[in-house]
Amino acid sequence: MSEFRGYTGKSLEFLKTNKINVGDSVKILSDLTYLGIIMPRYEHNDDKHLVLKLKSGYNVGLEIETIKKIEKIQSPEKIMEKKERVEKNPNLPKILLLSTGGTIASKVDYRTGAVTPVLTAEELNSSVPELAKIANVDAVVLFSEYSENIMPEHWLKIADKLKDYSTSDYSGIIIAHGTDTMHYTSSFLSFALAGFPIPIALVGSQRSSDRASSDAALNLIGAIKFLVACKTNGVYIVMHQDENDETIACHLGTRVRKNHTSKRGAFQTIGDNPAFIVLNDQVIRNSKDDFFKVKEFQPKINLNTKVALVKYHPGYDPSILEKIIEMNYRGIIFEGTGLGHIGKTMYENVKRANEKGIFLGMTSQCIDGRVSMTVYESGRDLLNLGIIPLENMIPEVALVKAMWVLGNSKKVEDVKYMMLQNIASEISK
Amino acid sequence: MSEFRGYTGKSLEFLKTNKINVGDSVKILSDLTYLGIIMPRYEHNDDKHLVLKLKSGYNVGLEIETIKKIEKIQSPEKIMEKKERVEKNPNLPKILLLSTGGTIASKVDYRTGAVTPVLTAEELNSSVPELAKIANVDAVVLFSEYSENIMPEHWLKIADKLKDYSTSDYSGIIIAHGTDTMHYTSSFLSFALAGFPIPIALVGSQRSSDRASSDAALNLIGAIKFLVACKTNGVYIVMHQDENDETIACHLGTRVRKNHTSKRGAFQTIGDNPAFIVLNDQVIRNSKDDFFKVKEFQPKINLNTKVALVKYHPGYDPSILEKIIEMNYRGIIFEGTGLGHIGKTMYENVKRANEKGIFLGMTSQCIDGRVSMTVYESGRDLLNLGIIPLENMIPEVALVKAMWVLGNSKKVEDVKYMMLQNIASEISK
Repeated sequence: MSEFRGYTGKSLEFLKTNKINVGDSVKILSDLTYLGIIMPRYEHNDDKHLVLKLKSGYNVGLEIETIKKIEKIQSPEKIMEKKERVEKNPNLPKILLLSTGGTIASKVDYRTGAVTPVLTAEELNSSVPELAKIANVDAVVLFSEYSENIMPEHWLKIADKLKDYSTSDYSGIIIAHGTDTMHYTSSFLSFALAGFPIPIALVGSQRSSDRASSDAALNLIGAIKFLVACKTNGVYIVMHQDENDETIACHLGTRVRKNHTSKRGAFQTIGDNPAFIVLNDQVIRNSKDDFFKVKEFQPKINLNTKVALVKYHPGYDPSILEKIIEMNYRGIIFEGTGLGHIGKTMYENVKRANEKGIFLGMTSQCIDGRVSMTVYESGRDLLNLGIIPLENMIPEVALVKAMWVLGNSKKVEDVKYMMLQNIASEISK
Repeated sequence: MSEFRGYTGKSLEFLKTNKINVGDSVKILSDLTYLGIIMPRYEHNDDKHLVLKLKSGYNVGLEIETIKKIEKIQSPEKIMEKKERVEKNPNLPKILLLSTGGTIASKVDYRTGAVTPVLTAEELNSSVPELAKIANVDAVVLFSEYSENIMPEHWLKIADKLKDYSTSDYSGIIIAHGTDTMHYTSSFLSFALAGFPIPIALVGSQRSSDRASSDAALNLIGAIKFLVACKTNGVYIVMHQDENDETIACHLGTRVRKNHTSKRGAFQTIGDNPAFIVLNDQVIRNSKDDFFKVKEFQPKINLNTKVALVKYHPGYDPSILEKIIEMNYRGIIFEGTGLGHIGKTMYENVKRANEKGIFLGMTSQCIDGRVSMTVYESGRDLLNLGIIPLENMIPEVALVKAMWVLGNSKKVEDVKYMMLQNIASEISK
């Protein structure tokens, strides 16, 4: 690894001049005095800052021009040796952390420069020291994938692993997961593990821990506070509510979407407030309604990936739909326009698909709001062609649900019935 | 037509008892006294209300139980005869209304019960009497389609028609359009007619004029106020800002999306405020920036529809992408996850597509925020495979732009260059 990894131009020159390497523990005098470790950088768009990891776990970006003095305290080898063993406190609740990869579960290895998963509870607890004060965290690494590479077979692995803990004495389970497809995974777990007795929180971070203002620590702390205090079960995504560090939102796993590429508050509950909010040490429930109908845990960890998501648009070529039908798909979720429409050009192939016994469900690319297929002629035509309106299910959730339902039922009538059963609040009022 | 069209149960019984038919002009005594016409109903989910069109053009739903007295004033034939010819006022600005269909351009024919397009300026002006006070409106019916059936060839027709008016003395042009795909049409017009000297407003309504609380009249009035006062050009979508009747939002035609299936404020500018707001009689501009780079009108009314929108998800079958490549598509817009990612399972076909000279662009299914493909390994891999990150272009807009660019350029290098030129504010800061 380069000793100056990621630093260029002025910042590189500054480090060289001062004989400071990435991984060194330093004391910096700027507007304030900072003690911390020089972090490597991965984005090359700025040569004006150093990134420093403070003892609290937070990273700060310091402008070189403001630095009056920099002093090396220790070189990285020394720091690696000083890793402390976190003592467990028997009076605290137990939390399991299952790691699947993603930004949150990664940290930079100072020696190799590679981003590697946080492997042990010790490493995790020492990187976020607040955790040990509120829970005893056991960490298990399941696999290590960025979430764009997480596939339905990974969902099955996660669900199978969780099943083993259904009778454990954990107060809650955290799944560290990349944010890109976290809402697809949370949907699958909500269906496959309906009735699971222990609350599950998927937690990610929008900024990796080697970057200034990483959200990893606060999201983890928020998730543990939520799991310990929520007094319910279910699968949630727990992330920053907005750019503010005060509130952590706990979204129902079937009503949430990543709605911004980079903001900390990227995840949003569609059409409603998040189910819970963690505000400092308070956990506030936003609805008195019971979120889940399934009371008994009977895992159904199956799926059939032969479901296509067809997003309609003007000029959508019906031949693509034709190919999908020929490829023996078992389900098609349409992301129609408005109240649930697709153009007349599609009708012939929709008819063929229905005759082949393919499940056809309608959602809306508007994302928010309910489909309603009795208002206009087009909607009524499509109903007659066998398309099932899926209420206000989010398109991505409908896709995952159809994969899951088709993995558990063979007959199309059963599939139609199950798709409209509200299992994990995927349909809301 | 049934004399009680759409009325069932209690409301039907009420009409029969009182010998009132749909289309009758009536006087109703309830909490207040109402004068208006009994409208037919198309949604059968309620038998507790009558819908009454008031003289102002607004529709109200009146609960039958609150009605103390109902009295017939005129039967429908009489009303149809009373259509007035609106006198033009030479001191008012001229507005052209091009109608393409959709809910807004429809009204119920009392005799046949069919929903038909508003055909003449007289009919339009008499249905929204406020219009005649602020502009002289000439109406032209181009075609009559609900917008889920509007295809790229319709975009060409609209653009060709508009071109004829580029040197006219209209202060503004309104395109009445169905809301489902209005943002696709506005994108095409923004590119094909860049530099068009007269401002263009696409206007729709979320509720048809035969329903209580239709938004058609206020959207039209807002659009005319905007066109007359805006002192700029460009293509906009003009609709309710929210559920409130006070503010009408004017969205840039390339930065807007229908984000709710049924709300009046369904259209939203992504990641920013609308370009203009009409608040009562004031037109407020939200940015000092110049929205459009193209100053001279040189229409480029061409397109190539061989562009596919590929929305990636866990379990997306790379064989579908393979089929698209085999079908001789010229462009693929990926709706990737997060900062612009797709899974490793897709790489082989992405490589093939690039080798075939297919334009490959990346947008994000997060919708809001910018793609950034240098942060993670996946992004860098995809850049190396030839995918072009399309900044913060909305996926649907990128699709339409790629169709337009491919209709005007043959060489893939030119296409790549044009896709990143900011023509109509499709890329924002």
